[in-house]
Amino acid sequence: MHRTHSCGELRATDINKTVTLSGWLQTSRDLGGMTFIDLRDRYGITQLVFNMETDAALCEKARKLGREFVLKIEGTVAERYNKNAQMATGDVEIIVSSLTVLNESKTPPFTIEDDTDGGDDLRMRYRYLDLRRNVVRESLMLRHKMAKVSRAYLDSLDFIEVETPVLIKSTPEGARDFVVPSRMNPGQFYALPQSPQTFKQLLMVAGFDRYYQIVKCFRDEDLRADRQPEFTQIDCEMSFIEQEDILNAFEGLVRILFKEVLGIDMPSVPHMDYADAMKWYGSDKPDTRFDMKFVELNDIVKGQGFPVFDNAELVVGICAKGAAEYTRKQLDELTDYVKRPQIGATGLVYARVNADGTIKSSVDKFYNEEQLKRWADAFGAEPGDLILVLAGGTDKTRKALNELRLEMGNRLGLRPKDKFSALWVVDFPLLEYNENDGRFYAMHHPFTSPKPEDLYLLEDEIESPVAKAIADELAVVETEPSTGSEKIITQAEYNYMNLGKIRANAYDLVINGVEIGGGSIRIHDRELQAKMFGILGFTPEEAQAQFGFLMNAFEYGAPPHGGLAFGFDRLCSLFGGADHIRDYIAFPKNNAGRDVMIDAPSAIDDKQLKELAISVTV
Amino acid sequence: MHRTHSCGELRATDINKTVTLSGWLQTSRDLGGMTFIDLRDRYGITQLVFNMETDAALCEKARKLGREFVLKIEGTVAERYNKNAQMATGDVEIIVSSLTVLNESKTPPFTIEDDTDGGDDLRMRYRYLDLRRNVVRESLMLRHKMAKVSRAYLDSLDFIEVETPVLIKSTPEGARDFVVPSRMNPGQFYALPQSPQTFKQLLMVAGFDRYYQIVKCFRDEDLRADRQPEFTQIDCEMSFIEQEDILNAFEGLVRILFKEVLGIDMPSVPHMDYADAMKWYGSDKPDTRFDMKFVELNDIVKGQGFPVFDNAELVVGICAKGAAEYTRKQLDELTDYVKRPQIGATGLVYARVNADGTIKSSVDKFYNEEQLKRWADAFGAEPGDLILVLAGGTDKTRKALNELRLEMGNRLGLRPKDKFSALWVVDFPLLEYNENDGRFYAMHHPFTSPKPEDLYLLEDEIESPVAKAIADELAVVETEPSTGSEKIITQAEYNYMNLGKIRANAYDLVINGVEIGGGSIRIHDRELQAKMFGILGFTPEEAQAQFGFLMNAFEYGAPPHGGLAFGFDRLCSLFGGADHIRDYIAFPKNNAGRDVMIDAPSAIDDKQLKELAISVTV
Repeated sequence: MHRTHSCGELRATDINKTVTLSGWLQTSRDLGGMTFIDLRDRYGITQLVFNMETDAALCEKARKLGREFVLKIEGTVAERYNKNAQMATGDVEIIVSSLTVLNESKTPPFTIEDDTDGGDDLRMRYRYLDLRRNVVRESLMLRHKMAKVSRAYLDSLDFIEVETPVLIKSTPEGARDFVVPSRMNPGQFYALPQSPQTFKQLLMVAGFDRYYQIVKCFRDEDLRADRQPEFTQIDCEMSFIEQEDILNAFEGLVRILFKEVLGIDMPSVPHMDYADAMKWYGSDKPDTRFDMKFVELNDIVKGQGFPVFDNAELVVGICAKGAAEYTRKQLDELTDYVKRPQIGATGLVYARVNADGTIKSSVDKFYNEEQLKRWADAFGAEPGDLILVLAGGTDKTRKALNELRLEMGNRLGLRPKDKFSALWVVDFPLLEYNENDGRFYAMHHPFTSPKPEDLYLLEDEIESPVAKAIADELAVVETEPSTGSEKIITQAEYNYMNLGKIRANAYDLVINGVEIGGGSIRIHDRELQAKMFGILGFTPEEAQAQFGFLMNAFEYGAPPHGGLAFGFDRLCSLFGGADHIRDYIAFPKNNAGRDVMIDAPSAIDDKQLKELAISVTV
Repeated sequence: MHRTHSCGELRATDINKTVTLSGWLQTSRDLGGMTFIDLRDRYGITQLVFNMETDAALCEKARKLGREFVLKIEGTVAERYNKNAQMATGDVEIIVSSLTVLNESKTPPFTIEDDTDGGDDLRMRYRYLDLRRNVVRESLMLRHKMAKVSRAYLDSLDFIEVETPVLIKSTPEGARDFVVPSRMNPGQFYALPQSPQTFKQLLMVAGFDRYYQIVKCFRDEDLRADRQPEFTQIDCEMSFIEQEDILNAFEGLVRILFKEVLGIDMPSVPHMDYADAMKWYGSDKPDTRFDMKFVELNDIVKGQGFPVFDNAELVVGICAKGAAEYTRKQLDELTDYVKRPQIGATGLVYARVNADGTIKSSVDKFYNEEQLKRWADAFGAEPGDLILVLAGGTDKTRKALNELRLEMGNRLGLRPKDKFSALWVVDFPLLEYNENDGRFYAMHHPFTSPKPEDLYLLEDEIESPVAKAIADELAVVETEPSTGSEKIITQAEYNYMNLGKIRANAYDLVINGVEIGGGSIRIHDRELQAKMFGILGFTPEEAQAQFGFLMNAFEYGAPPHGGLAFGFDRLCSLFGGADHIRDYIAFPKNNAGRDVMIDAPSAIDDKQLKELAISVTV
């Protein structure tokens, strides 16, 4: 061992001990007669002292050392003259008696400090130096602790960690797979798992009862700032449970993580229906660190001659407490903000509640003081508050107002990184209609179970008074929710669109407006699963070819089961208060999917291609 | 929750409680007036009772249930009439009051019992049913416990778990890589890691000090029974350490695993030089559960006119205690065994030490009683022992005798699965010469450090008396070790072959003759690493292109470091007493690399191929 102690270990009680330390030269200060070196390792920093008077040769040697040199020293622990209360080792220093340079270092391309002068690209190219910085190392140590606490908790609940395979089968449903050509099976490919979904369900069929894994998953998607082609999930599944049991078990995990990692006592996590989340926050992942709930104004504002509101399907607003002082310029900024193409509102109506209780709005031409008072009442607005209102199709307007709400939250400082608010969003729709493709997709995934009380909507003929009326006339006028336009539909279309109303036993955990993960109670019945694949556009043959193993398994005594997965990278970055999951990944890829440090991906040998029976078509 | 208790939980203290259980129908016995069902889950089995007298309808319903049906029952815990001491729940039974069939089951294709009637192929196709068998589930629970104990131990030593990337860069050195075409970088490929080797070394350069990971690795090799294309390693690396520190740390891991998983107090693990292992056991992974060490006989047997021994480079044997009774037929079997092509001996010489101390050998024509006594003395053979001797080139003969020793160990019952003997084999050669390619390969990997005392052998001119003599004459006669033939070599050749004498700071852990894993102290100096790549046949440009990131990192203050990796699948199977690692993998591949359950690998869509810019050339 090249040391007797780490650089973070020595205290006043060690004074006069002879010690050996190894580490990196963090800084060096030459004060003429004496030279001080801060020696750094993972555990801390210890000050080394070299004295011209007692050993000139050694001191001269020390002076020639550069930053990041790797040193091994022997010396005696001494009391420090200028104690440093900021450092755990600040009471002592080492009077060095021998010095070995274990390795030299070129001058690093950026400073190894919390606030480094290195840009993103440079730091990623030299990630091994970036990882030397305390902030980065601490991020990865937090990740280690998160995994450790998670495992201990799940172990305590009798979950078994099972490794599922990485080389599996490609399925066209969902995101793009990464594939791996098989040399031994020419022309065939493995796929890397987007999640261990089907395997964990098979483990439930196998009677494993409670499974977990902290596992790498892969998605070949075009990358955004917070997406990585490989990412890590805390992946779990349980048998003989209902939705409440899963929510309770994983609320427990979240709370113990907050307690043990951040020292925070998390209150119990409230549940919110998907429908309510959309109505109150315009989002299925509301940031509940602050209130500012949506208030729908249709009943109050319509019929006063303001065509924008009169023609809108939905008029809805938020009340920003204490923002009445916003200047014209600030309000124009907000208007520009909501009119950006990615937000897509056509305009912004505001109403200031002045200190004297009077209200000044941008639509004074259409609404008098008394009418505006009713607005204020609807929001519970008080003097000093600012009401912001959008109007249009329901879905689009809610989406835009969600963005405006978050923006106001930022501007008003209501989203601090050290405050945490968690929420279960439950009762998600089972299916999501895609206008472009004219078909439904699974909102969660094809294995999610419909709520039993909504199963009737899966039947071919809806037995309801409305449906009967339709059946008689063979067609009905239906309003298109997002635009408000009307169209004539047939019975078959009506039945089909009813699928969109089915709710699932599906749930998401949302913390601070970030979707940490989610899950569902699964289908465990072959017939229902086959029906679901049919709805999702699989022919029976396709369903059997791709998921036959799972449907067959359901015929051999599949228990009721369900589970969830948390995005571990995102959970870590949330706990660490970071904006990017990249900071919590030791060797991340950039937005082009490249590891710029090792320069991957790269071309491979023709020999490899030939063995794999593939060729490149670029 | 579909249960109040598990099927392994109820005891006599629970009698009279009303409970709900869920699980699988293991067996059903219809005794006329009463029907008994064994209900099984992961935790155990509980007996259910249905009585025709008290509830005929319920009892009739119970009688119609088949094996592996999934049931939920309510009932009252009662004292069992025929108590079963073999079962944890054997004191009680449940008088069932209500029965729900949660799911039906077709008749499984094989019985869900420890001794199943299902063949390998069938069990793999229905792996989810195979996993229901106690023996298989317990194997995977043992694996879970092994991982848990390993993590706890490494955590306690301040190792940090860091996830290294799965999508990395292909390198031609070593085994074949699995590769992954990159859609975003057309014509380029990621590779799946054969180990996280370079990344863990970079973590040491980054100052992480102690790293571990239980991690999937991938090798596209032709598969044998105990190989899988994806496998799991306990992967570790430490800084500022020497070989002894690593051996101590991981001996600690092995001992705590034996203690906590098997309840075995493992003695401290002895160290054996590679050279001694080869000399005494003819193997770098000797099974030390039994002694039967090799004894070299050259000095004793040569010059007595037996040409086979006289012409052999090495005459070497073993002494099988108590096997003198072996019949002629058994000895012929052994002779056939060693003459098999994969063993390759040309014959087998034996000598029986009879009860009266006389010795009967197969070479009595050449060796008299007195000479054979000297054989017996060399082995310390006693009456009743059997001496078995092979002769030929050193390497080949040792290899063959190793096989014979293991075979005798099997025949004499000296290799029981519940006895464990561990060993560190140390001081491996750095390089291994391949006759076919006429070049050296890294015995461990290219990052392994030579022993400092052998570094001189890397110099271009060996400064030794022998070398000087050669230098004068420019050529020398050298004996080829394996065949004993002589050839004339040049100074350059002599220098080159000297590389084979360099020993490495490399070590393997061997338990019961199985290589569990190994590691080495690494090179941390750019120049030495570059030289090593040169010896391994890389041009400087190739070395820079493939491993430039690592060599560059060594220029920025790389600490002395080293580590190891244990094969986790193999370690688990060893602990569990199994022959195949497959038994300890939840969803293994077969020898053709196929998952027959999900039918992977498989063809993928043309659309996928096109997006990935590749085509299939089958």
